[in-house]
Amino acid sequence: MAQLEAEDITQAVIDRMADCQDPRFKQVMTALVKHAHAFIREVQLSEEEWINAILFLTETGKMCDDKRQEFILLSDTLGISMLVVALNQLKAARAFQQGGGGAEQPTEATVQGPFYWEGAPALPLGADIGENMPGEPAYYQGRVTDTEGRPIANCCLDVWSGDGEGVYDMQMGDDAGMRLRARFHTDEDGRYRFWSIKPSFYPVPDDGPVGGMLRRMGRHPNRPGHIHMKVYAPGHQSVTTHLFVADSPYLDSDAVFGVRNSLIVPFTTHPPGTAPDGRAMDRPYHSATYDFRLVPAR
Amino acid sequence: MAQLEAEDITQAVIDRMADCQDPRFKQVMTALVKHAHAFIREVQLSEEEWINAILFLTETGKMCDDKRQEFILLSDTLGISMLVVALNQLKAARAFQQGGGGAEQPTEATVQGPFYWEGAPALPLGADIGENMPGEPAYYQGRVTDTEGRPIANCCLDVWSGDGEGVYDMQMGDDAGMRLRARFHTDEDGRYRFWSIKPSFYPVPDDGPVGGMLRRMGRHPNRPGHIHMKVYAPGHQSVTTHLFVADSPYLDSDAVFGVRNSLIVPFTTHPPGTAPDGRAMDRPYHSATYDFRLVPAR
Ligand SMILES: [Fe+2]
Ligand SMILES: [Fe+2]
Repeated sequence: MAQLEAEDITQAVIDRMADCQDPRFKQVMTALVKHAHAFIREVQLSEEEWINAILFLTETGKMCDDKRQEFILLSDTLGISMLVVALNQLKAARAFQQGGGGAEQPTEATVQGPFYWEGAPALPLGADIGENMPGEPAYYQGRVTDTEGRPIANCCLDVWSGDGEGVYDMQMGDDAGMRLRARFHTDEDGRYRFWSIKPSFYPVPDDGPVGGMLRRMGRHPNRPGHIHMKVYAPGHQSVTTHLFVADSPYLDSDAVFGVRNSLIVPFTTHPPGTAPDGRAMDRPYHSATYDFRLVPAR
Repeated sequence: MAQLEAEDITQAVIDRMADCQDPRFKQVMTALVKHAHAFIREVQLSEEEWINAILFLTETGKMCDDKRQEFILLSDTLGISMLVVALNQLKAARAFQQGGGGAEQPTEATVQGPFYWEGAPALPLGADIGENMPGEPAYYQGRVTDTEGRPIANCCLDVWSGDGEGVYDMQMGDDAGMRLRARFHTDEDGRYRFWSIKPSFYPVPDDGPVGGMLRRMGRHPNRPGHIHMKVYAPGHQSVTTHLFVADSPYLDSDAVFGVRNSLIVPFTTHPPGTAPDGRAMDRPYHSATYDFRLVPAR
C-alpha cells in the first residue's frame, strides 16, 4: 500500500535516491536524512517545536546579507564549523605524515568566522591598518616558511580583525567600508610586518536569532581576542587561521570553540619609543611575533 | 589547556549549556548537537561541502516570503515533516487507547505543507470555491463526529487546495488573493458540503534551492492530487490532514511522503444533471464523501 509507517519513513526517503547520479551527494544526503530523523525520534519533537524550528531557520536566513552571515554564526556557535576544520586538519596531518612529514609542523587552522571579506587592499609591508581606529597599536612580524624551513617569498597574508573594542568594519554601518583588513605579501626572505591594533575579546553578533539561541542555552557570546589570517602561496596548501592574544579573557570558553594552543601568541607591551621597524611611537604599543609554516602542495 | 581536540568538541558544546534554565530546550539542543556532529563525522564533510551547505541554507532563507516557505518544503521533501506528524500521531493514538479508546478511530493527520494561509473566508455550506478556476467541478460532503459517533455541530473545516492544474493561489501572482480556500462550519447534525475542483497531482515548487536538491537526488517533485483540511471544534483535538484522490498518479511516490491509506477517497464521476444538493450541472462533475472523526479533548 501507499502509506509509510513512522518506522519506515527514513528508509523510504533514502530509497527515493535510487536514481541519484552523484555518489558523494547520495552518501551525504543519506547520512543527513538518517541523522536528522534519528534526532527527531530521540527527542520526539512536537509539532509546535517543529514550526518554531522552521521559523528560527527562516529568521536566520532573513538576517543574512552581504555583511552578515547568520548561518555561519549558527554553525560556529554549535561547534559545527570547528568540527569540520578539526576533522579536515586531522586528515591533512595524516596525509602530511604519510607523505614523509617535514622538519616542522604546519600551522594549525581554525574557523573562518562570518567576517571574511574578499578583496581587501594589497598594502606594502609595514603599513598600519589600525590607524585612527579604537584600540592600542600593535606591531605584527614573523616569517612564512614551508615545513622544511624554506622561506616562502611573496606569500599572501590576508589579514582581518575587529577594532580594539571588538567591532568589525562589517558591523560599523554601511559607509565604513573596509577597515582593519589588508593583504600583505612576504619579502624575499619570507618575512612580513604590519601594524594594526591589539584585538579585543568581543561578543559574536547576538542581536539576531543565534543570539537568542545562545541566551536560551545559558551561554555567553564572547570570543577571546584574535586576529584572522588566510595565508596562501602558489605551490603550498593554504591555511585559514587566527592568532589568539595570550592574555585575553575567554580563551577557555570561546563561543565558537576555535582556540588552538599553537595559535596563542604573547603580546609584549612596550613604552613609547622607537619600534622595531624604526617608527617613533609617542604612546605605548604592543608587539607579536609569529611564524607560519605551510605544507608544500603535492 | 584551552584547545579542544576533534573528538572532544561535541561534549564541549553540550557542556556549555550547564547554565541552561529550560530542561526541554537543553534536551533538544543536546540531541541536535550530538546528531549534527555525528553526521559531520560520518561523512567527513569537506570545507567546500560545508560552505556549500551554508550557501544552500542562506538561499533557502532568501526564498521565503509571506507566500513561499522554502524551509517547510525542505523539511517536507526530506520526510522530516511527515516523521514529526507520524510520531505525534502515534503518541496521540497511544493516549487515545490508554484513555479507553472509542467506538471509531480518529481521522489520521498528514503534513500541513507550505500553502496554508490563515484567515480564509467563512462561507456558507454548499458554496463553490472552485468557480471560474481551472479544473473539473467536485462536490464534497460528509459528516464530522467524535470518536463515539456523536455529531459535532459548528465544527470548522478550513479547506485549501490547488486548482485543477495543481496551482495554488499563492503561486498565482500578487493580485490573485485567496482562491480555492474557505472555512466551512458543520450543521446541527455535523454535516458539511461544498463545491470545489477535483484536485490534480502537482510538482512542489521546484524553481528554488529545494528543487535543485530534488533534481540532484534524482527525484521527481510530484505530489498526488489532494485537498487540505484543518478540522477543529472546541472541546476536541484538531486534525490537519488531506483527502487524497484515489485515482491520482504519485500515490506511491508522494514527494513529501504524506499519503495515509485512510485518507484515500474515491471520486465518483457523474454526467451532467442534477447534483445531490439540487444544483443543475451542465457539465460532468465529481463527488467525494468523507467523514471526519475527532477525539474529545481531555
Ligand atoms: Fe573574529
Ligand atoms: Fe497541497
